[in-house]
Amino acid sequence: MEKEISQAVIRRMPRYYRYLGELLDDGVERISSNELSALMKVTASQIRQDLNNFGGFGQQGYGYNVRHLYDEIGKILGLNRQHNIIVIGAGNLGQALANYVKFEKRGFIINGLFDINPALKGVTVRGIDIRMLEDLPEFVKNHKVDIAALTVPKENAMEVANKVVELGIHAIWNFAHLDLELPDYVVVENVHLSDSLMQLSYNIVKHEQEMK
Amino acid sequence: MEKEISQAVIRRMPRYYRYLGELLDDGVERISSNELSALMKVTASQIRQDLNNFGGFGQQGYGYNVRHLYDEIGKILGLNRQHNIIVIGAGNLGQALANYVKFEKRGFIINGLFDINPALKGVTVRGIDIRMLEDLPEFVKNHKVDIAALTVPKENAMEVANKVVELGIHAIWNFAHLDLELPDYVVVENVHLSDSLMQLSYNIVKHEQEMK
Repeated sequence: MEKEISQAVIRRMPRYYRYLGELLDDGVERISSNELSALMKVTASQIRQDLNNFGGFGQQGYGYNVRHLYDEIGKILGLNRQHNIIVIGAGNLGQALANYVKFEKRGFIINGLFDINPALKGVTVRGIDIRMLEDLPEFVKNHKVDIAALTVPKENAMEVANKVVELGIHAIWNFAHLDLELPDYVVVENVHLSDSLMQLSYNIVKHEQEMK
Repeated sequence: MEKEISQAVIRRMPRYYRYLGELLDDGVERISSNELSALMKVTASQIRQDLNNFGGFGQQGYGYNVRHLYDEIGKILGLNRQHNIIVIGAGNLGQALANYVKFEKRGFIINGLFDINPALKGVTVRGIDIRMLEDLPEFVKNHKVDIAALTVPKENAMEVANKVVELGIHAIWNFAHLDLELPDYVVVENVHLSDSLMQLSYNIVKHEQEMK
C-alpha cells in the first residue's frame, strides 16, 4: 500500500465493487478474471493489473473469491466505516442527494441539509430538516460531519467551502462548476455536470464524423 | 483530426473551455501557456501537448489568442450548434437538470421532461411541461431530440434506454447506476454519483494514512 496508485485506477475501483456486489446478490461465489473480464468488458490483464496495485487477491486456478474481493475493495474504498455527510444547498440537486437511499447502504449517511433560503426552513426531506446555514457552526459542534456536499451556485461556492473548512470539515464533494482553491489537507471530489455534457457532445460530433 | 484522441485528453477540454471563458469575461485577449499553466495548475507542457492533439493554436512568442482558442475548443466540443435534450425521470435530479440555466448558454436546450408518475402530469419546470413517457414516440416525431438524459431508477434504465434508442435518439446521458448495454452507434456518457462518492472516500482514507 506504499506506492502511489493512480487516480485512473481508483476511478475504476467503484465499478469493480458494483459488479462484485451484483455477483454476490446473484449468489456467485467465485469468478475467474476471464469471466469478470467478459462481464465488465475490460481485458483480463487490466483487471489483474488493477488488483495487483492492492496486492492481488486472485489465486492461480481458482480465480477470485467474490465475497473476499468485494470486502477488500470495500475496505480500500473506505466503505467499511460510516461517513456522515451534510448537504449545503437544498435546491433540487441537494434534495436529490438527500433522497438517494442507496448512499446509505454504502455507509454514507446524510445527517444535515442546509440552505440560506428562509422559505426552506423547517422543510424536511426524507426526515432530514432543512436548517439555515447560519446554524452550521452549532450543528458541527454537536454532530460528527465527515463530508460536505456543496450544491450551491458557483458564485457562493468558494465562500461556503472556506467556511466549511474553517469548521473542521476536510472533505468536500463539490457540485459547483468551479475548481475550489483550498489547503492541501482538504480532499475535494468534483462533479461537474457541464463538463460531462460537453464530453458527451464531443463524442456525438466525433461519432458523426466517423460515420461519414 | 485523424488520429484517435484519448478520453483523458477529452476529459480535460471542458476545463480549458471554462477557464478561457472566464478569461474572456475578464477581458483578457491573449495568454501564454505559462500563465495558463499557473492559472489552471497543470504544467505548461501538458497544455501544449493537449492542444497539439488538435493542431496547436499557439504562436511562438505570442501565446494563445483567448477568443480564438475558446472558439476552437468550443467547436471541438461540439458547442457551435444546438443540442436538444429530453430528460426522462422528472424526480429531484431530473428537475435539477431542467432548472440548470447554464446548460442553455452552451447550446444544450432541454425541450422535454418525461415521467411515468401520473401525479406529475402537467406540472411544469421552468416552463417545460412534464409529459407522460407513453407520449414520447409522438413527441419525438414532432421535435428534434439529440440527447436523452436518463434520471430513472436503475431497475428501469435499461428498458427506457432501449425505447429511446428505438425511437432514433442515439446519445444518452446516463445517471442510473449501471452500465447500459447498447449498440455501438449509441454514444453514452455516464454520471455515476455513487462512484464519485467512493472515490472521495478512498481519498479521505488515503489522506488519513499519509497524515499518520
